[in-house]
Amino acid sequence: MGSIFGNLFRISTWGESHGGGVGVVVDGCPPLIPLTEKDIQTDLDRRRPGQSEITTPRNEADQAEILSGTFEGQTLGSPIAILVRNKDARPEAYSEMAEKFRPSHADYTYQAKYGTRNWQGGGRSSARETIGRVAAAAIAKKVLAAKFAPDLEIIAYVKSIKNIEANVDPETVSFETVESNIVRTGDPDAVEPMVELVKQMRGEGNSVGGVVECVIRNCPVGLGMPVFDRLEADLAKAMLSLPATKGFEIGSGFGGTLLTGREHNDPFRMEDGKVRTTSNRSGGVQGGISNGENIVFRVAFKPTATIMTSQETVTTDLKDTELKGRGRHDPCVLPRAVPIVEAMASLVLCDHSLRQKAQNG
Amino acid sequence: MGSIFGNLFRISTWGESHGGGVGVVVDGCPPLIPLTEKDIQTDLDRRRPGQSEITTPRNEADQAEILSGTFEGQTLGSPIAILVRNKDARPEAYSEMAEKFRPSHADYTYQAKYGTRNWQGGGRSSARETIGRVAAAAIAKKVLAAKFAPDLEIIAYVKSIKNIEANVDPETVSFETVESNIVRTGDPDAVEPMVELVKQMRGEGNSVGGVVECVIRNCPVGLGMPVFDRLEADLAKAMLSLPATKGFEIGSGFGGTLLTGREHNDPFRMEDGKVRTTSNRSGGVQGGISNGENIVFRVAFKPTATIMTSQETVTTDLKDTELKGRGRHDPCVLPRAVPIVEAMASLVLCDHSLRQKAQNG
Amino acid sequence: MGSIFGNLFRISTWGESHGGGVGVVVDGCPPLIPLTEKDIQTDLDRRRPGQSEITTPRNEADQAEILSGTFEGQTLGSPIAILVRNKDARPEAYSEMAEKFRPSHADYTYQAKYGTRNWQGGGRSSARETIGRVAAAAIAKKVLAAKFAPDLEIIAYVKSIKNIEANVDPETVSFETVESNIVRTGDPDAVEPMVELVKQMRGEGNSVGGVVECVIRNCPVGLGMPVFDRLEADLAKAMLSLPATKGFEIGSGFGGTLLTGREHNDPFRMEDGKVRTTSNRSGGVQGGISNGENIVFRVAFKPTATIMTSQETVTTDLKDTELKGRGRHDPCVLPRAVPIVEAMASLVLCDHSLRQKAQNG
Amino acid sequence: MGSIFGNLFRISTWGESHGGGVGVVVDGCPPLIPLTEKDIQTDLDRRRPGQSEITTPRNEADQAEILSGTFEGQTLGSPIAILVRNKDARPEAYSEMAEKFRPSHADYTYQAKYGTRNWQGGGRSSARETIGRVAAAAIAKKVLAAKFAPDLEIIAYVKSIKNIEANVDPETVSFETVESNIVRTGDPDAVEPMVELVKQMRGEGNSVGGVVECVIRNCPVGLGMPVFDRLEADLAKAMLSLPATKGFEIGSGFGGTLLTGREHNDPFRMEDGKVRTTSNRSGGVQGGISNGENIVFRVAFKPTATIMTSQETVTTDLKDTELKGRGRHDPCVLPRAVPIVEAMASLVLCDHSLRQKAQNG
Repeated sequence: MGSIFGNLFRISTWGESHGGGVGVVVDGCPPLIPLTEKDIQTDLDRRRPGQSEITTPRNEADQAEILSGTFEGQTLGSPIAILVRNKDARPEAYSEMAEKFRPSHADYTYQAKYGTRNWQGGGRSSARETIGRVAAAAIAKKVLAAKFAPDLEIIAYVKSIKNIEANVDPETVSFETVESNIVRTGDPDAVEPMVELVKQMRGEGNSVGGVVECVIRNCPVGLGMPVFDRLEADLAKAMLSLPATKGFEIGSGFGGTLLTGREHNDPFRMEDGKVRTTSNRSGGVQGGISNGENIVFRVAFKPTATIMTSQETVTTDLKDTELKGRGRHDPCVLPRAVPIVEAMASLVLCDHSLRQKAQNG
Repeated sequence: MGSIFGNLFRISTWGESHGGGVGVVVDGCPPLIPLTEKDIQTDLDRRRPGQSEITTPRNEADQAEILSGTFEGQTLGSPIAILVRNKDARPEAYSEMAEKFRPSHADYTYQAKYGTRNWQGGGRSSARETIGRVAAAAIAKKVLAAKFAPDLEIIAYVKSIKNIEANVDPETVSFETVESNIVRTGDPDAVEPMVELVKQMRGEGNSVGGVVECVIRNCPVGLGMPVFDRLEADLAKAMLSLPATKGFEIGSGFGGTLLTGREHNDPFRMEDGKVRTTSNRSGGVQGGISNGENIVFRVAFKPTATIMTSQETVTTDLKDTELKGRGRHDPCVLPRAVPIVEAMASLVLCDHSLRQKAQNG
Repeated sequence: MGSIFGNLFRISTWGESHGGGVGVVVDGCPPLIPLTEKDIQTDLDRRRPGQSEITTPRNEADQAEILSGTFEGQTLGSPIAILVRNKDARPEAYSEMAEKFRPSHADYTYQAKYGTRNWQGGGRSSARETIGRVAAAAIAKKVLAAKFAPDLEIIAYVKSIKNIEANVDPETVSFETVESNIVRTGDPDAVEPMVELVKQMRGEGNSVGGVVECVIRNCPVGLGMPVFDRLEADLAKAMLSLPATKGFEIGSGFGGTLLTGREHNDPFRMEDGKVRTTSNRSGGVQGGISNGENIVFRVAFKPTATIMTSQETVTTDLKDTELKGRGRHDPCVLPRAVPIVEAMASLVLCDHSLRQKAQNG
Repeated sequence: MGSIFGNLFRISTWGESHGGGVGVVVDGCPPLIPLTEKDIQTDLDRRRPGQSEITTPRNEADQAEILSGTFEGQTLGSPIAILVRNKDARPEAYSEMAEKFRPSHADYTYQAKYGTRNWQGGGRSSARETIGRVAAAAIAKKVLAAKFAPDLEIIAYVKSIKNIEANVDPETVSFETVESNIVRTGDPDAVEPMVELVKQMRGEGNSVGGVVECVIRNCPVGLGMPVFDRLEADLAKAMLSLPATKGFEIGSGFGGTLLTGREHNDPFRMEDGKVRTTSNRSGGVQGGISNGENIVFRVAFKPTATIMTSQETVTTDLKDTELKGRGRHDPCVLPRAVPIVEAMASLVLCDHSLRQKAQNG
């Protein structure tokens, strides 16, 4: 319970940061979708550690093996199991954590909930768990492209790091622009100040957070379900299930509460035979269902909890103590969060596409 | 699909704004919980229309009938079905909507998805649907109190309407303070300006939105599950499933992205033999699991889409036209949203309490 | 938990034999399916008590009210709630049951599980609960006919009562033949002996059981899913979820274990351009998936537990005692079980049709 | 969809007979349960091929690797992933099957459903898939023993092969007796005739089926849920989800339909302060809920479909042809089915124990 996501495109992730590996089982994938390990590797490489000078130096190739569910380069319709071995684990770096709870980490709550925890790294709460999501999402993207939305584009990018805000137009930002810089922002002018800030933070043993924005273009009309499974509700759950997230907003978001209804409503107009809105404060979703406009949402990521300075904390036998962070960590998770946000959005859209087809196709 | 919420305390809501009624079936409720229709009515009365001068004048008593699942004033452990009849429906007020899509409503997306819709009011997208949620949550609260958390307090309040912000301390705000004013804010000084603003908006045929904040006090440690069913993920889904919501944040939220890790982390300290944090930027949840501190989150509600001025829109046969709002609507949903936010939080906590008991109890 | 059935065509039944009523909520029904209360009433009338001289004299009109989910005679795609009031309840007939557990009933196990029970009749374990299933299945049948299998025929009939076996050919038996006699058997020669036996049993205050056979003709190829949701697995669960059932077999069933593989295998042959089998010991399902041949299965119903003679039992305060059955009961549930078996088969096929469409449509 | 089983102890199996391997992910396992690979291996060894002269000579060590979810020899509460590599696969033995559908196998229906299939062996329909179930059940048994029913015994045995019936008393049969013979029957006198029959069948290139009976002793009172998730319904689904099964019956089963109610009812009596029944035609379940008596059920397995003689069939391009079985197969699946039946029963009981604890614990 808790490691399964989706209704029809159902994924089951597993694995701790230290142990045999991490992976995922995808149940419900349509058959005859071309799929090789390379499709998955491309996305895994975007999230893997050690990919640039501003991410963690933990060096994992994160090589994916497809164990089942494909035959002669295509999906069979049966469960697709994917395995990524843990290689560059260094449990010894965590020995102090066996006895001390790291502040703003999951150590204490896992211990309190389960009466045990794998203290060698983040265990199940490690961002390493997202490998399974990204691998599953690589398949979801192929399904979406082959069966539901050939022109679909899901593009996430760093919107802000701390107080440095990028100037990005969701209508036009390109995947290439985002991937062209190690911050993964959509604003070339923001790259340098962001890189500088992250480096400075790392130098100080400190960390920063920020906001990832994501735009979904050419999404079919009709995805999402009243009442509980509104598209924005499932996107919110998907995003808030990511480590280090603190907020989600779609369209006008929190800022939209400063407008009146007259200012906020999106008028409808016919355009090229299609029902369109002349503004998009709805963020592409109305009544929980996609309306064909760009879906735009933002996710807040807090500053990385692991910092290299001494902090107050308590021991597992409940005594006050201090702890100084060790291990290999990202001073800022944002650049690597970008492909993960895209992954979660892909999983939500793929699941809702299958649900839409079942009921209304 | 879409109208069922929860894993172990599973609710199934049904009903349109115009038709036989609305209601809910609760499956999985523990037995021997004292429950009468009065328990449910108290909460329904807090969300019902026509309760004050700043809400919609639609006058519905919203009388709940328990059809099953109780015996001699206690739950049986079998499904509890609750029915609320629609009484003061006026479909004639909506005849124009049969042919025109209301901007920023669900009319167009429902029509596009299903090829049909009940245009007599909001249909399934009406806020009237939340009656089922509130009724189910009245039961959830009784379960929580009887079985899991006798001292639990779930208190929501209006944090802001448009640019008027209330000054409320989540540590101390009381249910009585919130209920003592028709805005349902926790700040007595904010009541009058907020009421004035809403009245002014209604006078202009306009509308406003705002932010509801909710604090959960005395929540047991250990609720929430890695990975996908983190407590904040399920709260986010619950809140974003409410009509008119555009954002969710927990603890430091979006504002927390402006801090460094050193400023943001919550140090642990022992206090009265308990592990506590000396600050609460985590918002009571770490690693997806409650840590015993106050859970504090905020939900953004957009301004009501129905406004009484002419707006551009299109007809169901795809021609440009104009539409002026009619019918009876809230110029500001916030006061009535307060009990609904509490209801959704109760449902999430009750479900997670049962899940926690199953695996770790 | 426990009162929800189906994945995509998901039904949630509720209600006790004595209380406000019984009913069902259907979530996931496709839109634009013609549906009126009359469609549902026809099937409810086939299962209702008091319909013939060999069923219980409890006289319930079992009038169905559709509370939501339809508009202008068609489904909306939103949840369909159906309510049937309890009318001819006589709780006073059950007062003795408040203190004594009826042998081979659910009284003791419900009390042991929940610490309470509605002793006024069968409570939740009453066959009255199947009203919700039959009502939901009336909708499922319309969906199947409109969207998936226009020529589908689901025909159940009494195959045996005690040792009287009917001679029925599943290939040719007609609905009209079955409905033409009050036993609902497909063999006109078996009607009289069966009626006589039931009457004799009732005269003696005794009861009998038997076997219902069901044939599904013109089922599309491809329904059912490896591994756990094989069509026969879901049919077995559906049938064993019915009160008083003790066994399920498909195709050759238990008798098939007496054959060798050479005798048992169904050879494939081309026929009119279709892959057919020249025998059908598989019962229309191979590898858990329908192969286009007739699906034939049988369900064993034990003799009715309520008998009018004195039996040994224990009291709720755990003392040995005796109990003589009272109340109005069927001396043989088989005739009324026939439409319920058909109903469960319809629900399984409708759900699997939607699942098949989602993944492979 | 289709490869996930259970509500709270949720397993997700994956894998084809030929490919990277087979395995399972178990989500929802309680923490702190002692678990090593050896626990799992013991059960896998009981189901593995090549274990005796009457099973398939395919020689697979079926070595299980636990990839996640344990730490220092105990479960963590996080998903437990288990991998078993395919080693002795011989796809070349199946080349003819690429073009011909094997009679009474899943070849045709898989091809028809998915438009593709892994024809190298049984693919997903192979009995090899049950490795994941047996591995997961090894964990379920440890959970049951540690948390819910320390004295629980789940003992299956071959009740009949073709027309040779074993004489076994479910009250007293021991695990040791069953495991002491290669047929896995509980009747020492039946061993030799059964072995002889299987050898004779293999000699003739033919096959046989039979019935496995299973008794569950010392099951707690109260497991199972009205309405759809009755214990017998979930057992029936579990058993009919196994390859080659054609029937399920519990307690008196089909034979019980020959009795009258007076003969069939189980009288209650107090015994040692407990409510007991003096007969057990209910088979340990009443109203869908365990009553503390022995749970006794039977499962029919058809004769193995693969036989070594020529049979009529069709080609994948829809022409009539003939096919003679090849590959390594069991002439009788019963001996290896015994641990698998026990495994499925364990999974059902573990899931229902967790559900019972959640609602009524």
